[in-house]
Amino acid sequence: MAAGSTRSDSSVFRWALGIEYDGSGFCGWQRQVGQASVQAAVETALTRIAQQAVEVVVAGRTDTGVHALCQVAHFDTTVDRPESAWVRGGSVYLPEAVSIRWARPVETAFHARFSATARRYRYVILNRRQRPALFRQHYAWVYRPLQVERMQAAARSLLGTHDFSAFRAAACQARQPVRELRLLQVSRRGEQVIIDAEADGFLHHMVRNLAGVLIAIGAGERPVSWAAEVLASRDRRLAGTTAPPGGLYFVAPRYPDAFALPIDPALPFAG
Amino acid sequence: MAAGSTRSDSSVFRWALGIEYDGSGFCGWQRQVGQASVQAAVETALTRIAQQAVEVVVAGRTDTGVHALCQVAHFDTTVDRPESAWVRGGSVYLPEAVSIRWARPVETAFHARFSATARRYRYVILNRRQRPALFRQHYAWVYRPLQVERMQAAARSLLGTHDFSAFRAAACQARQPVRELRLLQVSRRGEQVIIDAEADGFLHHMVRNLAGVLIAIGAGERPVSWAAEVLASRDRRLAGTTAPPGGLYFVAPRYPDAFALPIDPALPFAG
Repeated sequence: MAAGSTRSDSSVFRWALGIEYDGSGFCGWQRQVGQASVQAAVETALTRIAQQAVEVVVAGRTDTGVHALCQVAHFDTTVDRPESAWVRGGSVYLPEAVSIRWARPVETAFHARFSATARRYRYVILNRRQRPALFRQHYAWVYRPLQVERMQAAARSLLGTHDFSAFRAAACQARQPVRELRLLQVSRRGEQVIIDAEADGFLHHMVRNLAGVLIAIGAGERPVSWAAEVLASRDRRLAGTTAPPGGLYFVAPRYPDAFALPIDPALPFAG
Repeated sequence: MAAGSTRSDSSVFRWALGIEYDGSGFCGWQRQVGQASVQAAVETALTRIAQQAVEVVVAGRTDTGVHALCQVAHFDTTVDRPESAWVRGGSVYLPEAVSIRWARPVETAFHARFSATARRYRYVILNRRQRPALFRQHYAWVYRPLQVERMQAAARSLLGTHDFSAFRAAACQARQPVRELRLLQVSRRGEQVIIDAEADGFLHHMVRNLAGVLIAIGAGERPVSWAAEVLASRDRRLAGTTAPPGGLYFVAPRYPDAFALPIDPALPFAG
């Protein structure tokens, strides 16, 4: 399909991309001098395809070591290339830890970050005494037995629209700390304990700080009521440990249906 | 628990181990000069714990790049160490791609290889057009769409006791090629196509050669009847491509219940 044919009145084409990546070897999404970032890898590949400089805007920046199932980014270009050029070319020019799932021409009204109505994350814990060998970069390992019912009860007390300052990293650049946490669900499948979270947006380290609080409660170190106490305090010093990044997956953003993007992430450790 | 206390009449203690490993960085299970093998890693760790030379016997040798969820091995030693010494010591002295799940004292009647009544394998295919980024060492990637019903029908025609010479690597050292294939099941979960196999034993490359034939049939390159034709030919040249190793997991052996081993592998990509 030649996207340009329907848009020949415009000199700029805007594309949305679905991107999967293994965060293990990256400093995170955002470009940083002297480090390997996903953003730099994607921009380098797109620039080679377009043969002109390409900059991407992302739905949700991720930290060092955090993975993404269906990250979404958009970029503008004046060159007219078909969808296959972006997907296949991206596959060829990207490092093997990054893969472009799909590309779609979008209206300039679409913005990967500002059009997103929600972001979803999954945090996967391997809960057993012995350390993981298989998938060790893809789990957070917790050897203390976790009681999922306690974690789930604590999670419920955090739902809704709150000032999440207590779960925010010192380096967080967000202008304000109020977020609507729409989903925070804890489930067990054998040795795995899975935390699913959805909000309009997340503060820096917020998912990992939420996971750290739920883990302390699940391990019996803190009472179930502690989660709500930490939240009410708005004090980051209370929330304790930030859970490690290897178990964290940016699942996908949500956009209004009108944009018709093929967001259908395959969740790891199915279910 | 001091295993020696119940066996003080004997100067030799036999232990069984449950071992998990990521095969990506290894030449396979078996020790090979100048290469990193799982066997060498395990024997080196156990030798450090025992402070005497330890040799292990394994249930099912695996190839380069093949993973194991619950490999089982046994070893003999004259030193009296508790279970925790083998499990925790193993964890400390092993490379991070290998983990000891459990250790159990066993009678000398137990033999990791000869006592096993069956071996189970799982082969995990990522079936989509775009190459995998996440879990890329843990899938076999097939971009042609696979029809699982065709694969399942072909799989049924291979069940039972047969001469599996057509699915045997040239280098196979087994004395005879007859095996009883008790399970060969193909299922789809989203983008994943999973092949589960169980037999009394497998010939060298047998699972990957079975997978190669099922993939060719699933992709429509060969008719469903081709699987039975290849089997009947006993001719390795007919079976075509050996499927790649990264998607293959040695799940676990089976032993008579009397040995009471805690074999409970967590299957990857749950279900």
